[in-house]
Amino acid sequence: MLDSVPDNSEPKVTTRGRPRSERARRAILGAAAEVLAEQGLRAMTIEEVATRAGVGKATIYRGWSSKGTLALEAFLDEFLSTQPPIDTGSIEGDVRSALQAWVETVNGTTTGRSLVGLIAEVQLDPELGVAWHHDFVDVVRGQHRRMVDRAIARGELPRGSDVDIMMDLIYGPAYHRLMQGHLALNQEFVELVTAMVVAGAKAGAAVPRVGTLG
Amino acid sequence: MLDSVPDNSEPKVTTRGRPRSERARRAILGAAAEVLAEQGLRAMTIEEVATRAGVGKATIYRGWSSKGTLALEAFLDEFLSTQPPIDTGSIEGDVRSALQAWVETVNGTTTGRSLVGLIAEVQLDPELGVAWHHDFVDVVRGQHRRMVDRAIARGELPRGSDVDIMMDLIYGPAYHRLMQGHLALNQEFVELVTAMVVAGAKAGAAVPRVGTLG
Repeated sequence: MLDSVPDNSEPKVTTRGRPRSERARRAILGAAAEVLAEQGLRAMTIEEVATRAGVGKATIYRGWSSKGTLALEAFLDEFLSTQPPIDTGSIEGDVRSALQAWVETVNGTTTGRSLVGLIAEVQLDPELGVAWHHDFVDVVRGQHRRMVDRAIARGELPRGSDVDIMMDLIYGPAYHRLMQGHLALNQEFVELVTAMVVAGAKAGAAVPRVGTLG
Repeated sequence: MLDSVPDNSEPKVTTRGRPRSERARRAILGAAAEVLAEQGLRAMTIEEVATRAGVGKATIYRGWSSKGTLALEAFLDEFLSTQPPIDTGSIEGDVRSALQAWVETVNGTTTGRSLVGLIAEVQLDPELGVAWHHDFVDVVRGQHRRMVDRAIARGELPRGSDVDIMMDLIYGPAYHRLMQGHLALNQEFVELVTAMVVAGAKAGAAVPRVGTLG
């Protein structure tokens, strides 16, 4: 357990009025990410974040509409910085690298714990769900679908391959193991998911057959 | 919103002492499933379940150690009855039928809402997580893995195919869409997941390659 005395290595910022400085913003997001990872969203308080960031509570209330939106932005900031754009030149290399980066970021880490906690809270809080979809799901999927689009453009995968089904087959099993915790997110997992998705897609199995549109 | 007046069509049971009758047990589980679906686990109270089941609270406390374990048993009872054993004679038919049954059970239903709510609560309650794994995850996976075992026995899939990775590729995308709600759980989804998993597995992509064990 960390104590709640402000960390003096964090920038001390006194703000008055609207223009939040970038330093204050970074301090607040860093503190929020820390508190979220340690305590979860439910136990997190604006007071604790303000203390650790060395800012007044009013500064936080001016910048974020709720605890949930602050936690979400703090998480995204941390998470997205660990998922660099990938372009290895082949769909197999891209899927493996993307999945590997995801596993490294979440497996047994505080980021993974925050991710699981946020997904749980999103199920119980429809308002947070809207922000979650807009700021996380859409953004991450938008980044990732480029690897499939490139593979189709290169002629590696058949035209008409359903990008969404491929995304769900890559990340669905990963989130499943993260949430249910039934099996390890290890290198063998990455290799097998990659091999299965690439083999299926190259065989044309991701192209919807006429008459199956439901 | 339903009111909380006891439903007289439910069996009225007066129990004293240990031996709970099967009728009381069924009434309690039915009432718990109802309250869980309507209000979620957090809002559910033993009092409300007792009122609807027409039993005393003590009867419930004698039979279940916590609200969570009661909710879990009530959910399982309902969920497992909707997932009949499947044996169509081919891996493609089995995967399609199993996934279809799952989608029909959870898609836009109160069962699906309860499932999502329970998975969320499991992330926030480690004790419930233990029961969840033992009574739900292990049971459901045990039932489902038989379809892969049979396909290997028939020679439809190569020996050494990783049953767990196949399970995760079938149900991972399904849970992913259920939890994230980003895309529809429709017939096209069932067809594409089935086609991808079967094509990948028939190509031998579910067999771990030596040297990739992580």
